[in-house]
Amino acid sequence: MSTLLPPAGAAPIVTLPSTETVHEARKRIAPHVLRTPLVELLGPTDETALGNSHAEEDGNGDASAPLKIYLKLENLQHTGCFKARGAFNALLSCDAETCRNHGVITSSAGNFGQGLAWCARNLGYSCTVVVPNSAPETKVTALKRYGADVVPVSYQEWWRTMETRSVKGIQHKHFVHPCADSAVIAGNGTIALEILEDLPDVDAVVVPYGGGGMCAGVGAVMKEMRPQCKVFPVEVETSAPLRAACAAGKPTQCQHTPTFVDGIGGKSVLPEMWPLVTQVMEQPLAVSLEETATAIRSMVRVNHTVAEGAGAAPLAAAVKGLAGRGKIVAVVSGGNIDLDTLAAVLQGEIPTPGGRPTGQE
Amino acid sequence: MSTLLPPAGAAPIVTLPSTETVHEARKRIAPHVLRTPLVELLGPTDETALGNSHAEEDGNGDASAPLKIYLKLENLQHTGCFKARGAFNALLSCDAETCRNHGVITSSAGNFGQGLAWCARNLGYSCTVVVPNSAPETKVTALKRYGADVVPVSYQEWWRTMETRSVKGIQHKHFVHPCADSAVIAGNGTIALEILEDLPDVDAVVVPYGGGGMCAGVGAVMKEMRPQCKVFPVEVETSAPLRAACAAGKPTQCQHTPTFVDGIGGKSVLPEMWPLVTQVMEQPLAVSLEETATAIRSMVRVNHTVAEGAGAAPLAAAVKGLAGRGKIVAVVSGGNIDLDTLAAVLQGEIPTPGGRPTGQE
Repeated sequence: MSTLLPPAGAAPIVTLPSTETVHEARKRIAPHVLRTPLVELLGPTDETALGNSHAEEDGNGDASAPLKIYLKLENLQHTGCFKARGAFNALLSCDAETCRNHGVITSSAGNFGQGLAWCARNLGYSCTVVVPNSAPETKVTALKRYGADVVPVSYQEWWRTMETRSVKGIQHKHFVHPCADSAVIAGNGTIALEILEDLPDVDAVVVPYGGGGMCAGVGAVMKEMRPQCKVFPVEVETSAPLRAACAAGKPTQCQHTPTFVDGIGGKSVLPEMWPLVTQVMEQPLAVSLEETATAIRSMVRVNHTVAEGAGAAPLAAAVKGLAGRGKIVAVVSGGNIDLDTLAAVLQGEIPTPGGRPTGQE
Repeated sequence: MSTLLPPAGAAPIVTLPSTETVHEARKRIAPHVLRTPLVELLGPTDETALGNSHAEEDGNGDASAPLKIYLKLENLQHTGCFKARGAFNALLSCDAETCRNHGVITSSAGNFGQGLAWCARNLGYSCTVVVPNSAPETKVTALKRYGADVVPVSYQEWWRTMETRSVKGIQHKHFVHPCADSAVIAGNGTIALEILEDLPDVDAVVVPYGGGGMCAGVGAVMKEMRPQCKVFPVEVETSAPLRAACAAGKPTQCQHTPTFVDGIGGKSVLPEMWPLVTQVMEQPLAVSLEETATAIRSMVRVNHTVAEGAGAAPLAAAVKGLAGRGKIVAVVSGGNIDLDTLAAVLQGEIPTPGGRPTGQE
């Protein structure tokens, strides 16, 4: 399980960034990524009864403060997802000659692969993305559109590359881990710097929990710059490895049901992320598929913005009152949703999953 | 036809703003409206073959410059449309005591009514919106949601209020014209100031042509601050009164077919806007319903943002090459589209109209 945890006394593979490191990351990636807007949730949503009792029951937030929700629109980011921040910071932080001569490589079936491929193309590096051979054709097409060489392998082999941080037979390329990478986490942390610029008195930030990279980056910055701001990770009930890990006190295998929310969830929390995220996060929140679909629909209707399932889960949690009252930012992490899936959601359906075997990326 | 044109020698009812006036408007409305982002169109769109030949045929732009399209996301604005800018500037420019004591009133079946109602509520004024009694229930519901008193009248009577700038029996309220109002136009002009801040070397801006208020405001600023930047108004082919007016040399009645693109088009150009817009605009462009639907779909897919028909027409024209090459800004004027209509567009259909009798607002 914890093959990646370093031996006692050894330096950890991945660490939380200091705010200074995140500021440096921001300078580094600024010319390349979008400084995304923070917008108010324009009400009313489909959930006009905001269930404020939840906030009190859970003991989060000040019961006397009104709930005001803001959306951090990372779905407007290049490649439709926040991942370009971490990917660019990782590529700009490592040895350029190696990358130029040999190219870069990652394991991802989704957003990180697209983000890295786009960044690599911008820097003139070749990019290889290892995907499970069950990855849906639309994801593969998207990767190729950004110029990536796509290498399909068995699911087991694919998952192993995440653990070993290398791909059999392609060792010379520079491997970038999609989340358990210090530079990637620092890049994700730039989201928190922007939130604090736009809303200095933010009370809580809700982030989707997939690999844990956004939670770690945003949490590290908040811990240092605004410790009273809570950072809530959110999962969908059908696939909640973080909740399972919190209950067990360590990463543990859990039930995973593939759904249309394919950017978060999985069979287990990545063990090397566990000691990081537990330093900076609140207890994880969980929302249902129905609540997530409703949040997608609300955002289209009132804010005219398109979120994928993972990107809508934070709003679903915030609207439900799970993150308490006060000024709550829901990070709309991405907008990469199939048009057919979105059309189904708009018509009130819960779409069937796109066939992706796991949400871990 | 031209009952609103002032007698020769008299001061015009409505004028183009100076850049200074627009700067003042910007200061006035800044605390209330969103400073919207300008984002690159993230390619590729559904129209990968960009039809560059069009640009050359039309003689617009430098044939050697690549086409780079940007989206000004006014669909993220409060009430989902740029109208809040003009409405706020109008309300903050007029006598506060009259507004507070008697309330404000406008004639609109759509976005301007919502914008004014929202602004009025923020300022503590009561707001009445006169609508044709054929206005769809969804529009009426939206108006009421923003706290407006909705007064349905016959279509003829409704249209007359736009010409007389008053409503029979409700003369004491302050009437704000949805487009032919100098303060409204100056408020719209703030869009151009923001575009110039983000993209100082912009080559052309494409705006939807409904009542002409955005064309006049954006055009006035560009004329003074960056005269080499062309401002193209765009209509849908099924309802192109501006094209008809340009052909006739004056506003003229034309064919109007109601479609799902309900924010632009109408039976005639407003006569008091004609002398203004002709000073600042290029020849009007026209796009088909299919092209508009494709542009909506492209924006959802690649930029994860939701445009209504009128808000997508500028992108449709830009992608087609009608605005030439170089750096082209398509103003995504609004995102107020029914979820069913959007779902149909996402599935490749051309939806039927929502029942709105005219696009003039």
